[in-house]
Formats: sequence, structure tokens, C-alpha cells
Amino acid sequence: VNLLLVGSFADDEGAAWAEALRQALPSHHLLLDRKPGLAIDVAIVANPPPGSLRGLAGLRLIQSLWAGVDRLLGDETLPAGVPIARMVDPAMNEAMAETALWATLSLQRGFYRYAEQQQQALWRQLPQPRADEWPVLLLGYGQMGRQVARRLAQQGYPVTAWRRHAATAEAAPGVTLCQGRAALQLALAGARVLINLLPLTADTRGLIDAELLARLPPGAAVVNLARGAHLVDADLLAALDSGAIGHAVLDVFQVEPLPAPHPYWRHPKVTVLPHAAALTDLRSAAAMVAANIETLARGGTPTHLVRRDAGY
Amino acid sequence: VNLLLVGSFADDEGAAWAEALRQALPSHHLLLDRKPGLAIDVAIVANPPPGSLRGLAGLRLIQSLWAGVDRLLGDETLPAGVPIARMVDPAMNEAMAETALWATLSLQRGFYRYAEQQQQALWRQLPQPRADEWPVLLLGYGQMGRQVARRLAQQGYPVTAWRRHAATAEAAPGVTLCQGRAALQLALAGARVLINLLPLTADTRGLIDAELLARLPPGAAVVNLARGAHLVDADLLAALDSGAIGHAVLDVFQVEPLPAPHPYWRHPKVTVLPHAAALTDLRSAAAMVAANIETLARGGTPTHLVRRDAGY
Repeated sequence: VNLLLVGSFADDEGAAWAEALRQALPSHHLLLDRKPGLAIDVAIVANPPPGSLRGLAGLRLIQSLWAGVDRLLGDETLPAGVPIARMVDPAMNEAMAETALWATLSLQRGFYRYAEQQQQALWRQLPQPRADEWPVLLLGYGQMGRQVARRLAQQGYPVTAWRRHAATAEAAPGVTLCQGRAALQLALAGARVLINLLPLTADTRGLIDAELLARLPPGAAVVNLARGAHLVDADLLAALDSGAIGHAVLDVFQVEPLPAPHPYWRHPKVTVLPHAAALTDLRSAAAMVAANIETLARGGTPTHLVRRDAGY
Repeated sequence: VNLLLVGSFADDEGAAWAEALRQALPSHHLLLDRKPGLAIDVAIVANPPPGSLRGLAGLRLIQSLWAGVDRLLGDETLPAGVPIARMVDPAMNEAMAETALWATLSLQRGFYRYAEQQQQALWRQLPQPRADEWPVLLLGYGQMGRQVARRLAQQGYPVTAWRRHAATAEAAPGVTLCQGRAALQLALAGARVLINLLPLTADTRGLIDAELLARLPPGAAVVNLARGAHLVDADLLAALDSGAIGHAVLDVFQVEPLPAPHPYWRHPKVTVLPHAAALTDLRSAAAMVAANIETLARGGTPTHLVRRDAGY
């Protein structure tokens, strides 16, 4: 089949993807540019510029290299009726679990505060709560949420995972599942750390606002690993400055890269990551894409298809 | 039995210990000062000033509130022949495992470098190695080492634990044990992170020197969670400055508190913790002390006795 790779790549990232995909799909034809008269079967996309896929007749699959497809679905020129598959990469899920565990350990044990103290050459021991005294609330329980929940529970944290809707997914050992608005309000009141892993949809945009933050106990922390637009920045900054929220770990922002003058960069209670909580792993991601394309070539149905109406 | 609490306590730490011990040992008599004519059965000590136990005739047990007894054993006025028990606190072992896991995650995923980048408002993603590509070498495999090894292996790191002597301890799942100098040199060559958890003895003092550091691969990290005197500071600083060692996480120092002018405080490749990798947890530690004293009162043999000749 004919494959077209389209994305907004930094530096030689596009070349690295092309190389990994060609190795994983040796019997198919990968193009980096549209050629007049050549029909494309599969578009492999990574944050493609809007309009990139316009007019691609005969397209049978759009395979995203990103797990989040909110920007992709926002492109109104996207060919209608073509199935979209998102990236589900076990190595990426594991990377997300590592970041969530690192942030939770850092918050529980005061390691962000020790880093601040180091800057002042200040020698002072902080309280040492146990993991079982440090409840974590996850928003979202998809592929990534499940791996995050499993790792945190394995390390001894009481984990509650909240979903917007009841679903059939089973809870991992040590994980409590809940759903709906009322359950969320209850769960917020008991959480030391709130970790956001939701998909960005019309329903979840701006979910983490002043009202939600006010339901967390004093000094609780916010860890946003999903999308910048889930969070109302002004509300978070106000809660940090009043002390209502103790710390925030932010990997995603309304505008990326985060502009240099943004107050998050220099806020003593904010840890900024450059959208690096879970990078796609070229090796395992190319293998997942290849499996989907071989399935399609054999006439089967690719996995991890997006529901366009749900937005993820 | 009559108990005497002696230590070098900060602020109201001594009062908190006295309170926790009295609650855990309601049927015994806890003194905070020696009284003429009153025989002391058990001295409960936390870094006691040298000479504190001189002349305590009839002493049946010295119970340390610290896991490390190197300073205690250095006191030449310590009554001879009295058994010494050290602290083995499951909550403290778990706290040590948390710190080791946090340091390893931070090194593997570049979180110390992201913190540096934040100070410069620099948005740059770093390589994302997988845990199974990030071998960890533990020096020491006692009570703490075992818990650290278990947690790291559970998280997917290849873990090798080195002991000075062959011992009967079994390896936890995913942990490789080795012993002796030759095995150490081999293990160093394959390690991305070296974590020190050894007891401080005449054998281990200054073990982490230029020669040992030179056997680690370029850019490997050193995490010292044991005693400052295990490490030759000038050798580490030289290796950090040449780039041979990529980062150091130091919880313990030759002089504590670490003096404000010490270069470690301001070194961009050094993370300083204020001897807080594993604080004694009053609640579980008082329970452990109480169990040992009840055993003694019943005529039994206390647990976790120190071999004075071995030094730990």
C-alpha cells in the first residue's frame, strides 16, 4: 500500500520517523510528499498542518503518531468517513507512568521543596508522610491511565481513578474506580495529588478551574500530563499564590513551546516540563503502526480507532 | 525495666521521642537524665554525645534509634560487652526505597536537567531511555538494600546488588547478587547509576574514590544515601567537572549540616538532600524499640544486634 508521512517535525525528527517506518514496513511504499496521480492508502500523521490531507481521495486510514488527536480532529478539511487510528504505544504508556510516579514521589517526599532549599543552601528536614497516607486521584482511565494507576498502586499509594462515564474497564489491584460529577467532588476532597490524563474534548476543556481546585484539600498538588486547555491557568496561579494549591507539575500548556515570559517558568511552586512526560518511542511506535497497516493490507480492521463524535 | 533516652536531638525531637516511647512502653520507666542510685537497664540512644553511657553498670542493652551505628561504635567509653541493637524500621526502609526510586527515575528521564532548563526558560525535550535500558548497581544488600532493590526491579530497572562478602541472603525477583572486588569492577562497567547503601566501616571508608568512579561508564550517576565518609569528595567533584560522572545525588556528607560555602550546594550537577533520604518514622520505630525491650524484659534475645567487630 502507499503511505504518506505528514507532520510538523522538529529538526531531523521527520527523517527518523521515515527511517523507522521504512524498516518496520519494508514491503510498502512510504512517501514524504504527495505526488500527482499516485493514490495514497494511509496517511501517517503527527500534528499535520491543517489542510494537509485535503482532497486525498481513496484514503483508507489516517494513522496518528500521537496519542492525543484533539488537534487533528479540529482540522475541518480532514476527509470525512476515513477511519482514524491513534497511537497506543506500550513504551509511551510506561513513560507516562514513570513521570506520574516521579511527580507523586517528589510531592509526597518534598523533593521539589528540597530543590528550593538547595538554592538557598538551607539544611532542613521536611515531614515524611508514608505512601499509604498520600491518596492520588487520576482523571482519566484509558490506556495511559491504567498503566499510571497500576504503577502508583504498586508503590503503595491509595489510587482513585475517575472517568466521565461508567465503562467496562476493570480496576487494577489497589485502584478504586468512580464516575460522574458527584463522585468526582467526593474524590477531590480526599486527594493529596490530582493527576490529569483525560482526552481533550468539548466536555473536558477547562475542567480544572477555580471551582474544581477549591474542592481539593489545602496544599494539594496538581499534575497536568494531558492538555494545556484542560486547565484554567489564571485559576491555578491564583490558587498557588493563595496557598490553596501547594505545587503544580505541568507538562502541557495552552501555547507550546511555553513562551519565555509566561509566569509558570519562574513560579517557585511550578515545575515545568517541555511536553516530555511521555515521548513516543520510535521503535515501539513504528511497530504498532506497522501492525495496523499490515492488518489493513490483509483486509482487516485496524486497532485503536478514534470515535470522531466522542473526540478521542 | 528502667530506660534512659540519650541523644543529640534537634528542637523538640527529643520530646517527641520520649512521648512516642512512653506510649509504646507504658509499663516501663523512661528517664531523660541519669539519676544517682537508679540502675538503668536499657539505654535508648540517638547519636549520643561521646561519654554519655560511661559507667552505666548493669546496662543490659543499648538500643540505637539510628540504623547506622558507626558514630556510636566510635565512642571509646561505650560500656564493653553490652549488646547493641540498631534500628530496623520497615517504614524507614520503604522511605529509603522511595528516595532511591525517585533519584533513579530523575536520572533516567532527565528530570534534574529539565529543572535546570526551567531556570533558563529553555524548552527542549531530552532522550527518553526505557527503564530496562538503565542498569542500577547497589552497593550494600542489607535490610535497606533489599527493599531498594525490590522497588527498583519492580519498576523495570535491571538491578545488580554488590556485597563485600558472600552471604546467604536470597535475591529478590529481578535482582542479581554479586560479591568481591572483581565482581564489583565488572558491575561498575555496566551501571548507569551507582547507589551506595553500605554501612560505614574501616573497609568501606573512602570506597567511592577516583579509581572506582573511573570504572563507571561516561556520564553515569552517583547516589550516596549511606555516609559521607564513603565518598572522596575531591574525586567526585573532579569527575563531575570533567564530565566523567554526569550527576550526583548526595544525602550524606563528611560534615553535617553541609556547610554553606561547600561547592556541592551550588554545583549544577549535584542534588543535595539534608540527610533526609530515610527519616526514622517515630510511630513504627517506637514499636520496634518496644518489641525489643519487651523481649529483653521476658528474658529473650533482642533482634538486630550489632556485631561490634564487623562495625555494623
